[in-house]
Amino acid sequence: MIQSRVLKGFRDSLPRGEQIRKSLIARLEKTFESYGFVPIDTPALEYTEILLGKGGGETDKQIFQFRDNGGRDVALRYDLTVPFARFFSMHHATLPSPFKRYHIAKVWRGEKPQNGRYREFFQCDFDIVGTDSVFSDAEILMMMISSFRNLGIDGVRIHVAHRGLFNTFLMHAGISEKSEDILRTVDKMRKIGTDATRDQLVDILSSLDGVDAVTSARTVLDFITCREESLSNMERIDLLESLSGGESASSSRLRQLLTILESSGMADAIMIDPSITRGLDYYTGIVYETFFTDLPSIGSVCSGGRYDNLTGLYMKEPVTGVGSSIGLDRLIAALEELTHPLVQESPSAEILIFNDDRTSFQSRVSVAEQLRTEGLRVDLYLDQKKMALQFKYAQQHDIPYGLFVREDDSLLVRDLKTRKDITVQPDMTDTIKRFITQRN
Amino acid sequence: MIQSRVLKGFRDSLPRGEQIRKSLIARLEKTFESYGFVPIDTPALEYTEILLGKGGGETDKQIFQFRDNGGRDVALRYDLTVPFARFFSMHHATLPSPFKRYHIAKVWRGEKPQNGRYREFFQCDFDIVGTDSVFSDAEILMMMISSFRNLGIDGVRIHVAHRGLFNTFLMHAGISEKSEDILRTVDKMRKIGTDATRDQLVDILSSLDGVDAVTSARTVLDFITCREESLSNMERIDLLESLSGGESASSSRLRQLLTILESSGMADAIMIDPSITRGLDYYTGIVYETFFTDLPSIGSVCSGGRYDNLTGLYMKEPVTGVGSSIGLDRLIAALEELTHPLVQESPSAEILIFNDDRTSFQSRVSVAEQLRTEGLRVDLYLDQKKMALQFKYAQQHDIPYGLFVREDDSLLVRDLKTRKDITVQPDMTDTIKRFITQRN
Repeated sequence: MIQSRVLKGFRDSLPRGEQIRKSLIARLEKTFESYGFVPIDTPALEYTEILLGKGGGETDKQIFQFRDNGGRDVALRYDLTVPFARFFSMHHATLPSPFKRYHIAKVWRGEKPQNGRYREFFQCDFDIVGTDSVFSDAEILMMMISSFRNLGIDGVRIHVAHRGLFNTFLMHAGISEKSEDILRTVDKMRKIGTDATRDQLVDILSSLDGVDAVTSARTVLDFITCREESLSNMERIDLLESLSGGESASSSRLRQLLTILESSGMADAIMIDPSITRGLDYYTGIVYETFFTDLPSIGSVCSGGRYDNLTGLYMKEPVTGVGSSIGLDRLIAALEELTHPLVQESPSAEILIFNDDRTSFQSRVSVAEQLRTEGLRVDLYLDQKKMALQFKYAQQHDIPYGLFVREDDSLLVRDLKTRKDITVQPDMTDTIKRFITQRN
Repeated sequence: MIQSRVLKGFRDSLPRGEQIRKSLIARLEKTFESYGFVPIDTPALEYTEILLGKGGGETDKQIFQFRDNGGRDVALRYDLTVPFARFFSMHHATLPSPFKRYHIAKVWRGEKPQNGRYREFFQCDFDIVGTDSVFSDAEILMMMISSFRNLGIDGVRIHVAHRGLFNTFLMHAGISEKSEDILRTVDKMRKIGTDATRDQLVDILSSLDGVDAVTSARTVLDFITCREESLSNMERIDLLESLSGGESASSSRLRQLLTILESSGMADAIMIDPSITRGLDYYTGIVYETFFTDLPSIGSVCSGGRYDNLTGLYMKEPVTGVGSSIGLDRLIAALEELTHPLVQESPSAEILIFNDDRTSFQSRVSVAEQLRTEGLRVDLYLDQKKMALQFKYAQQHDIPYGLFVREDDSLLVRDLKTRKDITVQPDMTDTIKRFITQRN
């Protein structure tokens, strides 16, 4: 006998969880497709060199890598961005430009499994590549807003900043030499708080000659905490612009983006928030994270930004684009905390046809097939077991209605919660559908 | 620069292929759910011991296995049956009984990639476990028939045999000692032909004492080729029964199954065919393979059978069930050869809103959002590029309709193939939907 178990950090998806994930993904896909985005997929396994590039470093340890039977160094993908860059560099000549794609798939990381972090999880990425139009920035944000709206989630706020504007500010403040350290500190502010951030900034800046570390740290804080002021988004951009030495390409771009979103009636869900930096060097334009106002503690459920050089590792010509990634597992966890209707129990079938042994399987099948044609999900009880067991089965599956085929071929439909019955003639299955769908 | 490439035997899924696969899977899932089947998922990576059991052998070499960073022997799943057995042995106490599940996911095998065989491919499994009712055999077959019907595929024939009946026959013929070799030979008959099968059978049987190898080989061939006779299914069962020494539990079971399918009007798609054996020791009851009458060369697209001991490796109590597996990639290849509508080009969007720069992005977005609300898939051209490039983009994406927002806010909709135009007032987007959907 072998002991049944799954690997640490991995888990089975039981029917209820799997149904929820599938229905969430189906809704997201429907929204993406309504915007003309197309799906792609890439192999789970790639050459390690492709996935890790030349560097490696931190990611190196987190990745599942091995030598295959042919002696190749291979690895499981740890995100969908790197495989997309490889994909785009191979196929760009045959793809339309701009190219709008989405990709929903599993990725694997050997991280310490803790705090609801798993070693196998789903990512959901979408990008517009091949154009640096401000309208593509706007469209990505609008599609994010529509996606959450179509999931029936209220209180979604996308916090938007511009990496270029932050760089201009650091230059203007004469502290751009330390930009990497500053960015890293700012990125942690949501976790460590304003005071610790100030202290760390003073530390970082005091190593610079001719810079008043305390004053400069205060200026940085002024810049990144402007979202706490009761300003409109446009006023925030004005403030950021003045702190960074006046109008720049980045500030104009951000203003243009906001104007587009405002005129499209979508700006309510947007907050200009310069504390968003996104740790990666990868981003060069707008960056954003998405929070639920009813559940800020869950962190960002969708983040991304504009990049200048998607395929830098694989081709000469730089490829610009803008893209987002939804953390599906975090999103599901959030919906569960919010007891959102999308994560409520959903029955495996709407109606169970009982096997009471007084009628033939054939007559029960024929009713089942008729109801399926009407679009209902119908389960047939197959065994000749006691009614108590059959009722238990319905209960375990949360099936709300039961149906008995009677000897005279009439159909008795029972609401299994209220025990209310109706009797229907065999050719009147549409009545059953109305009975069921009206009450749900 | 790193050379972009994918591993041998792996491939990217480009948008068109990915759309086809997704739509196929969505239709299958809808059918499965209409029968009350629920989805599950399991990790891609498992303990090697779990996946290979104690044996290993042939499978051993085909599997992607390695030692993870924690020193565990792990492997990528090579099918969905073994993970399901492990899953069921861990969760059966919390699952309803009988349990009807489906699982559509990737599996990996290190086989030599050739003849359209890949090292990463999709499987689609569905099973009813926890009951040995003949009605569950019937339901699996009916759901297979409905699945292909709902995909719009005609000419589907499920070839059904019974492993137990074959064993009874071998026993009756006094040659059951060689049953494993005989089964293996019969399994190859479709490839090697009747004559080679006869020769091999004579070879196998001549090692048995007191057996006339030639006569016995003929009896075996009589048994397995009875599908070539112009007999009804029921007459075939009569013939098999007489060849195997009269009525047996297995022959009665097969007759009962056929009676159910006939009375449910589903028997047209069934052919009793004792040449179906399914190589595996695993099956103990009915076994079946599914062929397209218009494309027999593609081989079986859906096969399976009844087993007695799903979870033998992991738990004491035997678990019976019946299940099937659809080879999704083979099914897609078949549909492509049949130029089936499901695999025809499908556009990324139904309508492209051109950017002709005379109107604001806002007015174009507002039209796009309205059309999306009507359920249309709408692409916005984002760049301010020459119209020639925008038309090219529509063509590359096979988008059939274009829309211009005019300066007076009226909308010009063009059929991009016929160049036929209509002009619509901005509040009449439902007219556009009718124009588009009526013509498709």
